[in-house]
Amino acid sequence: MGKVVAEVVIVPHGTASPSLGKYVAEVEKTLRSFGLRTMLTPMGTILEGDLDAVLEAVRAAHEIPFREGALRVGTTIRIDDRRDREVTMESKMRSVEEKIGK
Amino acid sequence: MGKVVAEVVIVPHGTASPSLGKYVAEVEKTLRSFGLRTMLTPMGTILEGDLDAVLEAVRAAHEIPFREGALRVGTTIRIDDRRDREVTMESKMRSVEEKIGK
Amino acid sequence: MGKVVAEVVIVPHGTASPSLGKYVAEVEKTLRSFGLRTMLTPMGTILEGDLDAVLEAVRAAHEIPFREGALRVGTTIRIDDRRDREVTMESKMRSVEEKIGK
Amino acid sequence: MGKVVAEVVIVPHGTASPSLGKYVAEVEKTLRSFGLRTMLTPMGTILEGDLDAVLEAVRAAHEIPFREGALRVGTTIRIDDRRDREVTMESKMRSVEEKIGK
Repeated sequence: MGKVVAEVVIVPHGTASPSLGKYVAEVEKTLRSFGLRTMLTPMGTILEGDLDAVLEAVRAAHEIPFREGALRVGTTIRIDDRRDREVTMESKMRSVEEKIGK
Repeated sequence: MGKVVAEVVIVPHGTASPSLGKYVAEVEKTLRSFGLRTMLTPMGTILEGDLDAVLEAVRAAHEIPFREGALRVGTTIRIDDRRDREVTMESKMRSVEEKIGK
Repeated sequence: MGKVVAEVVIVPHGTASPSLGKYVAEVEKTLRSFGLRTMLTPMGTILEGDLDAVLEAVRAAHEIPFREGALRVGTTIRIDDRRDREVTMESKMRSVEEKIGK
Repeated sequence: MGKVVAEVVIVPHGTASPSLGKYVAEVEKTLRSFGLRTMLTPMGTILEGDLDAVLEAVRAAHEIPFREGALRVGTTIRIDDRRDREVTMESKMRSVEEKIGK
């Protein structure tokens, strides 16, 4: 089994302010601490690595908003796992950009 | 830490037919084999239980389409984890239905 | 073009309380007012109908939490659109249950 | 009402090959033709603009895989709509990066 590319979104509920950046920043620091490739986007974080390593990082990051005071956390993980050939964040984007360029 | 309610959707890509029921049925059997509360919906499966038990069931179910011949699997897990009070599938729906009824 | 089955989740951010039932109930009332088939689940609402009618209902429901005082709303729509044959909420679930029963 | 930031993922089912780049490229071309700000990521496309303009672009792009031969299409739209102040793709990411940097 090779690498997966996954997207994770971790959001607290009931935090009084609509600004969630404080929580997202702490979540991001935790996700980055696991040694996986990560990419912050305006709508979440994309991770690349072995599936179990990705899930371990997400599991840890899910606890972070609770430590910051949240009482409810919504976490969404979307996994793209392809096993006929290795895919990476870069190869997925390059494949699309090349086809658009033609 | 108490129970979470979570939704999981596990879909193979690159199957010749647009009918995915065969794969979904095998995934569902696996999810049900873990002893968690489960609810099949037209758009996925809802699980209730300890977060780590839910993730263990999803992790196992994610392998099922590969065993059925799929080369690529997309899995999405959406977790609702509330820790100020215990929530269940039933209490979440009842809360909404009661407010609608008023 | 026939019917689609879709799931919608509409959640306010920055509400003081982690309890979102008040908002969800108002959203649900709006979704039900459009004459589509709807199914409330513990993780969202499933709709069945023509795609444009579904999107119109979701568009209206997305405004509801703002009217209830929210400053930020997250809305997710997941659409399953199959055009080789008509599918419904019931036919999708029956297809899976029959295969499990065998 | 100001701009929203949204993520869209449009995927055909039953396409024989697990490679979906051909479909994704055509979807991306259509999304880009609407004059909104767009950002291709390894897991979807992020759009920024008025909510109705975003939905119009997504509605058009959802038809593209059918024109390319697909019989079933799954489309997911995730909308972040904040109305107490204007947010953009850049401001969302900068807010998080600044907090991480401290």
